[in-house]
Amino acid sequence: MAAKWNIGKINHVAIATPNIEKAASMFKDVLGAKVSEKHPQPDHGVYTVFVELGETKIELLNPLGDKSPIQNFLDKNKSGGMHHICIEVDNINEAMKDLKAKGVRLLSEDAKIGAHGKPVVFLHPKDCNGVLVELEQV
Amino acid sequence: MAAKWNIGKINHVAIATPNIEKAASMFKDVLGAKVSEKHPQPDHGVYTVFVELGETKIELLNPLGDKSPIQNFLDKNKSGGMHHICIEVDNINEAMKDLKAKGVRLLSEDAKIGAHGKPVVFLHPKDCNGVLVELEQV
Repeated sequence: MAAKWNIGKINHVAIATPNIEKAASMFKDVLGAKVSEKHPQPDHGVYTVFVELGETKIELLNPLGDKSPIQNFLDKNKSGGMHHICIEVDNINEAMKDLKAKGVRLLSEDAKIGAHGKPVVFLHPKDCNGVLVELEQV
Repeated sequence: MAAKWNIGKINHVAIATPNIEKAASMFKDVLGAKVSEKHPQPDHGVYTVFVELGETKIELLNPLGDKSPIQNFLDKNKSGGMHHICIEVDNINEAMKDLKAKGVRLLSEDAKIGAHGKPVVFLHPKDCNGVLVELEQV
C-alpha cells in the first residue's frame, strides 16, 4: 500500500538562547548570515529570529511570558542549545495517524497552528532518538 | 571591505545515538526517509548513517573505538540527541582567520579533513550560543 503522506526537507533547526540579540548578532555580524528582525509570538510563548541559510533555516528562540515552553530547556541548558528540529510533511493528519499506529507518541492529540501559521505537531523525543522533532505541513 | 569568505547552507545536523540501527530504522521505516548504509569512519571515531532530507542531511553518529569524540556526549545524554550543526563556507582558511579576529575560539589550529573528505573546523560552543558548530568548505 502506498504511503498516504511523505516526509520532506528539514524546515528549520531551533536554537533556544538566553540572549536572542547576542545570538542574532553572532549569526549576522560574525558569520555574515541574513537574519530577520525579532518577532514576538505570544501564542507560542517565544520571541523568534530566523536565520536564512539555504532552504533550511535556523530559528532562534527566546522565552516570552511566564509559561514559555522553552524555559525548562534553558533552565537545564544555561547557555542555550539546539532545542528541536522541524521536518516538513505533505499531510500532517495522515502522518499523525500513521505514526501513532507505529507506536510513536505525539505531544498533542491534534495538530496545532505553529509559528509560521501552518499545522504542526511535536513527536516525543524518547521515540525519536532523544531529539524533539516537529512535523510541519507545507 | 568585502568579506573574503561567505557562509552557505546547513550541510547537516548531527544526531549522536547509542543505537544507530534503531535510529536509522526510525528515519527509514517510521518516517519514510531515504537512509544510507552504516559507514565506519575509523579516522573520526564514529559510525555514520546519512538521512537524505532535501539539501540538508541528518547525520547519525555512533561511537567507534575507545576514544570516540561523541562518547562523552552520550555519557551525558543516554538516549542521544543533537550533537552539532554543520554549515558550509566557501573558504575555510579565510573564515578561520576572520572568526579568530572576532574572538571566536576554534577547536583546532588548522582545518582537518572531515568525514566527507573536505576541510572542516569546529567552533567553541560557548562562542556559538551553546551549539557546537562545524564549518565545512565545499
